[in-house]
Amino acid sequence: MESTTNTGIISFLGAEQGPWKIASMQTLIGAPLPEASCLNIQQGAITPDHDSDAKWVLHGFISNLRYTHRSEKTMLDEHSKPLGRPEYNAAALIPIQKSKEWWNLAQDERRRIFEEDSKHIQQSAEFLTFISRQLHHSKDLGEGFDFLTWFEFSSEHTEQFDALCAILRKTEEWQYVTREIDIRLLKQ
Amino acid sequence: MESTTNTGIISFLGAEQGPWKIASMQTLIGAPLPEASCLNIQQGAITPDHDSDAKWVLHGFISNLRYTHRSEKTMLDEHSKPLGRPEYNAAALIPIQKSKEWWNLAQDERRRIFEEDSKHIQQSAEFLTFISRQLHHSKDLGEGFDFLTWFEFSSEHTEQFDALCAILRKTEEWQYVTREIDIRLLKQ
Repeated sequence: MESTTNTGIISFLGAEQGPWKIASMQTLIGAPLPEASCLNIQQGAITPDHDSDAKWVLHGFISNLRYTHRSEKTMLDEHSKPLGRPEYNAAALIPIQKSKEWWNLAQDERRRIFEEDSKHIQQSAEFLTFISRQLHHSKDLGEGFDFLTWFEFSSEHTEQFDALCAILRKTEEWQYVTREIDIRLLKQ
Repeated sequence: MESTTNTGIISFLGAEQGPWKIASMQTLIGAPLPEASCLNIQQGAITPDHDSDAKWVLHGFISNLRYTHRSEKTMLDEHSKPLGRPEYNAAALIPIQKSKEWWNLAQDERRRIFEEDSKHIQQSAEFLTFISRQLHHSKDLGEGFDFLTWFEFSSEHTEQFDALCAILRKTEEWQYVTREIDIRLLKQ
């Protein structure tokens, strides 16, 4: 029978054990998540059992580009490095939710805010030589967040990562953010 | 515990019983689906049991607009009618898969092919006064199709629906279609 369910989904579990130690969880906008000690990342749509040590689980999937133009993709690809580099001993999971107003905008309106106004791509690009990232989409799964943004970097670049976050949080795009939790991680 | 799994997913089941009788299944491109008598549509990510009468199940979700500009949305909204009208005794489920080449294009390249070249929105608009539709996304779930397109209309407008399909299948956009099955349905 043709039936393939959710094979593209990735689960982020806040738990007692896992390869990433949670160094801090800062709720910037909206409702917090329960405190957890570690982060586990697993393929598939995991729903923990009652006897699991998970405090929360967030689901997302990797998708195609939604706003990036060809010239921008070429530029980003030149700057970007893959995840999982040995020197990347730090990471950040920043789940984000945007408002209904954002999602009701048409494609050209969202693109204009995202890049022409907020310069999300242009301002991020220079950081990508030492900060690698992967976007996961959550909204279409009916989750409490719309995006699970994931970053890896060397802990010596933590200040630069903070600077990138500060730049993005000042943009017009961020006025549509209704929930954001900044979870910082260290590789165990 | 914060854990919300796949509440946005809709399941289309080809089965022996259901509110829509399958009048025909025409495989236009790529692998066929097994024959089935009826179509059931259910909320949630259904995976049928062994003793189910389902021959296949396809999963999708409704999402935000990906290509439509504000001026086009305004025009489409003026033409569009909601699904489920009493006179709509016919429907079509047309699952579609597009090539890797399509998905590797940047947003501006896909938009140009979709509308500036293929006029997908402009050519469809006039039909929407008597054909209602809903797009469901599947690709990000790892399904065998990328889209589950759904249309409802009165059977007296079948020729016009065929004409709309013929227009779209001649476009540049359709050169990227790698699998397409045209499933026609009658309300029981």
